[in-house]
Amino acid sequence: MPHLVILYTANLDRDTNMTALCRALADTLLQLRDDDGQPVFPTGGTRVLAYPAPHYAVADDGTAGKAAGGDGDYAFVYLNLRMGAGRSDAIKQRAGNDLLTRAKAHFEPIFHKKHLGITLQVDEGAQAFDGKHSNLHPLFMK
Amino acid sequence: MPHLVILYTANLDRDTNMTALCRALADTLLQLRDDDGQPVFPTGGTRVLAYPAPHYAVADDGTAGKAAGGDGDYAFVYLNLRMGAGRSDAIKQRAGNDLLTRAKAHFEPIFHKKHLGITLQVDEGAQAFDGKHSNLHPLFMK
Amino acid sequence: MPHLVILYTANLDRDTNMTALCRALADTLLQLRDDDGQPVFPTGGTRVLAYPAPHYAVADDGTAGKAAGGDGDYAFVYLNLRMGAGRSDAIKQRAGNDLLTRAKAHFEPIFHKKHLGITLQVDEGAQAFDGKHSNLHPLFMK
Repeated sequence: MPHLVILYTANLDRDTNMTALCRALADTLLQLRDDDGQPVFPTGGTRVLAYPAPHYAVADDGTAGKAAGGDGDYAFVYLNLRMGAGRSDAIKQRAGNDLLTRAKAHFEPIFHKKHLGITLQVDEGAQAFDGKHSNLHPLFMK
Repeated sequence: MPHLVILYTANLDRDTNMTALCRALADTLLQLRDDDGQPVFPTGGTRVLAYPAPHYAVADDGTAGKAAGGDGDYAFVYLNLRMGAGRSDAIKQRAGNDLLTRAKAHFEPIFHKKHLGITLQVDEGAQAFDGKHSNLHPLFMK
Repeated sequence: MPHLVILYTANLDRDTNMTALCRALADTLLQLRDDDGQPVFPTGGTRVLAYPAPHYAVADDGTAGKAAGGDGDYAFVYLNLRMGAGRSDAIKQRAGNDLLTRAKAHFEPIFHKKHLGITLQVDEGAQAFDGKHSNLHPLFMK
């Protein structure tokens, strides 16, 4: 943890580099600090995955978008951060705000020429079982 | 919100049009009314995304399906609606029933020639953070 | 139910057969027994779906991995089992442990030559609506 999963309409792949967004948001998570100035998340446990949906439907059938001068092929990006339980509410708000700010900056160039919705939510995991196996963490524990 | 995410076995892409299903289910959500006759969900916030899984395993290894005259390549569709908290239980049941009824109608033509399971669940979000940025909503607020 | 959804970095498709992993984990679920020796999950309701993420960012930018002799293109596998509510905590732990053990065995051959993180979590569903339509269950109720 944390895991940030991004679900989005595949039409965005024409207009923007989603791998760059993944890297930018991973860096945002890694730069997050708690009230003592310590990193909130471990480097080796920070992951961002993005999935274009080949099939989608957003809002109406495109009528309103075309009437407003767009192409009616609306785009949508849903960012869901799942983090471990037990962190303060202030940290959760900071994580959400920082990620949303970074995502907005990424999409700014296309926000003015495309109808696009961005939603970011932070969930606290409540798993009944949590198991791990990794050779990544040791890389960052020197 | 609401977000309807559909996860399904990729073998269904041969037999049915999943983009059409997305549109049909988005329309089902938009047509939903509360007890006062008002729309339950905002047009600009209604999204359906569908993802074919290139790798999957369903039930047994196909033995039972072949014995029953099928090809043993079972299909599965999981529809998960996440909606904001605070709506009545009656609305949640109506949303679930209407979506399942529409999905069943969509798959009816292949239900008689293929082994197929459909599961639809409605979750109420309990997010710790919820942020949005959109130029879609203004299209529908005239 | 149960549904096991696997989200992973697409770089793993070069190194391992994810369809084989899906089948192996479905069999692990089907072999699970409760304290009375009865199957925990119904055959017709057991599903595993795996999704490679075409866009991803894991940990740092690859610097630490390269310094350790790797290629810096870290891999990550997130396995999430969602099961119906009401089963004992012991069953949940057993399901988690058995799945993680099987997944570790699958990735063992590449664990020694690639930087890779595996996380498995078991969630208990708390859905507000649960609907099904299937011709799979009857195949396994003889």
